[in-house]
Parts: sequence; structure tokens; C-alpha cells
Amino acid sequence: MAEIIDGKATSLQIQEELAKEVEKIKQKGGKVPHLAAVLVGDDGASVTYVNAKVKACERIGFGSTLVHLPRETTEEELLRKVAELNNNPEIDGFIVQVPLPSHIDEQKIVDAIDPKKDVDGFHPINMGKMILGLPGMVPATPKGILLLLEKNGIETEGKNCVVMGRSHTVGTPISVLLSRKSKPGNCTVTQIHSRTKDIARHTRQADLLIVAIGQPEFVTGDMVKEGAVVIDVGIHRVPAPERKSGFKLKGDVNFEEVSEIASKITPVPGGVGPMTIAALLYNTLLATKS
Amino acid sequence: MAEIIDGKATSLQIQEELAKEVEKIKQKGGKVPHLAAVLVGDDGASVTYVNAKVKACERIGFGSTLVHLPRETTEEELLRKVAELNNNPEIDGFIVQVPLPSHIDEQKIVDAIDPKKDVDGFHPINMGKMILGLPGMVPATPKGILLLLEKNGIETEGKNCVVMGRSHTVGTPISVLLSRKSKPGNCTVTQIHSRTKDIARHTRQADLLIVAIGQPEFVTGDMVKEGAVVIDVGIHRVPAPERKSGFKLKGDVNFEEVSEIASKITPVPGGVGPMTIAALLYNTLLATKS
Repeated sequence: MAEIIDGKATSLQIQEELAKEVEKIKQKGGKVPHLAAVLVGDDGASVTYVNAKVKACERIGFGSTLVHLPRETTEEELLRKVAELNNNPEIDGFIVQVPLPSHIDEQKIVDAIDPKKDVDGFHPINMGKMILGLPGMVPATPKGILLLLEKNGIETEGKNCVVMGRSHTVGTPISVLLSRKSKPGNCTVTQIHSRTKDIARHTRQADLLIVAIGQPEFVTGDMVKEGAVVIDVGIHRVPAPERKSGFKLKGDVNFEEVSEIASKITPVPGGVGPMTIAALLYNTLLATKS
Repeated sequence: MAEIIDGKATSLQIQEELAKEVEKIKQKGGKVPHLAAVLVGDDGASVTYVNAKVKACERIGFGSTLVHLPRETTEEELLRKVAELNNNPEIDGFIVQVPLPSHIDEQKIVDAIDPKKDVDGFHPINMGKMILGLPGMVPATPKGILLLLEKNGIETEGKNCVVMGRSHTVGTPISVLLSRKSKPGNCTVTQIHSRTKDIARHTRQADLLIVAIGQPEFVTGDMVKEGAVVIDVGIHRVPAPERKSGFKLKGDVNFEEVSEIASKITPVPGGVGPMTIAALLYNTLLATKS
């Protein structure tokens, strides 16, 4: 039975470290980090995510501002809000929660964010700095995975890593980051996706398997090498009539099967999810220093 | 015996297409593309490269300007020259030939180039756009490899591709580009490097092997799968006392051995090298449209 990599505990540990940083900053009379989150509309999952981010700020002593705009907000109005946050010296970093309503061009909004305040790390210049190994904001989920590996003492040097998925937010950046000459890093990374032939042949060679493919319980026991470390980025609500809520949360990995074969595995929930928040707070602290 | 992928012929074919574009632009009374190349000092290889770029411009009817500055040029003076080229509407794109003298911070110079005129594609924002799949300048050598694959009808979809090397100029961008949902692209890419264990085990799985490792004749016959397509990015002068020049050019691949096993292979010289120039000209034309 695999050891559980406890993302919730690791996230709380990082949050404690950040809270201590805040104390030090206060003692020195410095600027306390302040995160703003912009939410357009009332999408259920988005409201949950944004609230979790704001609450985490409060817990560790960061300042936080929730900017809740109606669904009808125009692109121009949102761009004005972004400019306002860019120019507000009180705000160190901010995110615009996606998805945005379809009448707003997401890329236009991301491009308008001051890269120094782009704590989600989605601005092209931050992506480019990541490729070039220059200091900048690293997207929150990949950054969270790096922190999870590091804080749990998981060695990556020289390991064969298979990344399943090629999204701009997870699969591609984590592939780049784990290939780099750094710690964690120095992996031999294979990135697989929907056009990959014989997926299992690749995944069975992975010492470290990172799954961000967006399909519930896609990875089964026969696809995993004995003793592999498995990081599950997926999160899905699947129907569970036996539960009061009517659903349960599942990842991209069939946990029951894979936990019998892997040496270490992240659970869903309580794995990568909480680490994304830790990484966002980490980036916000970083933003105060830039 | 492998079929030779003729980079020189492919480059000339692209240059002919570009020359026809120039004719069309002239007929319409439009702006003829103009490339400037900045050379600091008198490094032998750099002089050769820059001259080749300027000559290629002349051959296809592009305007070209060679800015040759003394080795003693200060960082500040070079930044002023970059600003001047950024602001000169006659210049559509320009490159600053590397390596620069050690008293100049290369990244500072790259960061100062207007991304729209950055035909080398090294600016962080162009790297980031590449990752995000947004339109922008793609670095010349990876772009040249994509054009070489495309123009020679080499199918990449669903193929296992191994990229040897993780430089910012070649290994990392070509890994990202070939993983993308595009044509050429949709490969399953494994990126290997100096920390990879059992390199040959990886390379022997490659349908498409791209070698940019910077070591003469590193890849031997036993490392290559029967029928693989091999792209050799390396170029080295190795001593050859029997020749008048005293040297010959070799790639990162042992051509004699590997050409017996591969189905297609690029020679050195005459493979990727000429394609880099074609890609630079291609980017310059693109710059007139941005």
C-alpha cells in the first residue's frame, strides 16, 4: 500500500512558514503582502475557489480583497479594473479567476496584468521567463507540485518522469520545470497527450507520474510501474447516490488500484489542490519583493 | 543507407518563396522587409554567421543593414543602439549576434529588444507566447527544424520523439513545439540531457531523434532505432590534417554509423544550419506584418 503524500498538511506547513514571514515583516514595519482576487459572475466552483484563496490569506495574515463583479461586466470594464489593480500600490498581486464569461477574451485580460503582480503566472512574459530559467512568477499548480515534491523529500534527479497532459496551466509548465537543471528537476521528462500511441507503454516507464489529463480515474493499476510516485492533478465530481451530497471527488487516477502499486501517491481531495493555494500565497509574498 | 534530408536545398526553396513574396510586396508598393544585424567585436564564427544572414537578405531582395560595433562597446551604448533600431520604422526585425563580449549582460540586451522586431525569438515574451500557442516569433533554429520537417513531408503526428539537449535556443523550444497540437507537432516528446540515466535506452525508442547536445559524433549507430528520422543540430570543427583547411565539420551524430540505420538523416554541413537562416528570413517577413 502506497504512502500518502499529504498535500493538505504540506500546504498548511507552508502557510505556517508564510505566517511567520508576515510576523517578521510586521516587526520590521514592512509592507504586509496583499492579494486581490477578481471574480466575474457566480459560477459555483469559481466562488468556492476564490473564497478558499481569500480565507487562506486571512489565516496567514496577508491582506486580501475580493472584487466581485456581475456576470454582465464588459471586457472594457474588466480591463479598467485590471489597470486599477496594476496601479494600486497596496495590492502586491492579484488573480482574475477563470473561466470568464464568454463575451470576455481571457488572453486579453491576462496580457493586461502587470507581470510583477501576476501571481497566477499565466502572463506570456512569466511563461517565457520560466522557459529561460529567469526569476519570475511560476504558475500556481506546477509551483505547488514542485513544493509538494520538495517538502516531502521526493528525489527527482535522474528519474524518468511522465507528464500526462499538455495544458498551458499544468502539463506543459510542469514538463519544462522538471526538465530544468534545478532541484526539484533534472528529470528525464516524457510529455504524453491525446495523440500519444500506446499510453500505457510510456506510463509504465515512469518513476514519477504526473497526471493532469482531466478524465476521472483514467490511470489504472496496470498502467503504473511498481514503486512509482504518482501525483494526481485531476479533480472531478462523480455521482455517489449513497452519499448525502450525491457525489464524491475523484482524481484522474484510480486511487484504489494505483495505491496498491505506487510507492507514494497524492489523494483527491487533499493532494495537489491545497498546494495550489500554498503556491499562490508563496507567489504573493514573492511579488512584494519584486 | 538513409535518405539525406537536404537542408540546403530546402532552405533555398524557402528563400525562393520569400523572394516571390518580396516581388508581390513591391508590385503592391508595400514595405520591403528589412533585417538589421548587430555584431559586437570580431569573433570569427560570429562574423561568418552575420555575413551569411546579410547575404541571404540581399539574395532574396530584403533590405539589410549590418551594424558592426567595436569590441569595447559598452552595455549602455549597445542598449542605445537597440532602442534606436526599435524606433526605426525602416527596420522590421533585427538580431544582436551572440556571444557578446563578457562585459555586456546578454539577457539585458535581449529584454530591451521590441518583441515585435525580435526575429531571433529569444525575448521572454516570445518564448511565453510559444508555450501558450499564441502567435509570436519562434526561435530561428527550432523554427528551421519545423520548416525542414514540413517541407520534406516528414510525418510527426503520434510519433515518439526524443530531443537530446535542453538549451534555451534549441532543445527546450523544439520539445515544446513538437508536443503542441499542431502540424508539425503532436509528437510524444522525451527530452533528455546530461543527467539522464541510460541515454541509449531512450534514444532507441525514438521514431524522430533531434540531437542538440553540443558534443561531436556523440550519437552512435547502436543508439538509434532502425528506420528512425535523425535531425542533427550540432556543428563542430574537428582536426583533419589530411585536408588543406586542417579541419572538417562534424555534427553531434556519427553520420557514417547512423546513416546505415536511420531512414532519413540531415548531413552536417547542409542540414539544420541553412534552415536557421531560412527561418530568420521567414520571421523577418512575419515582422513586417505585425
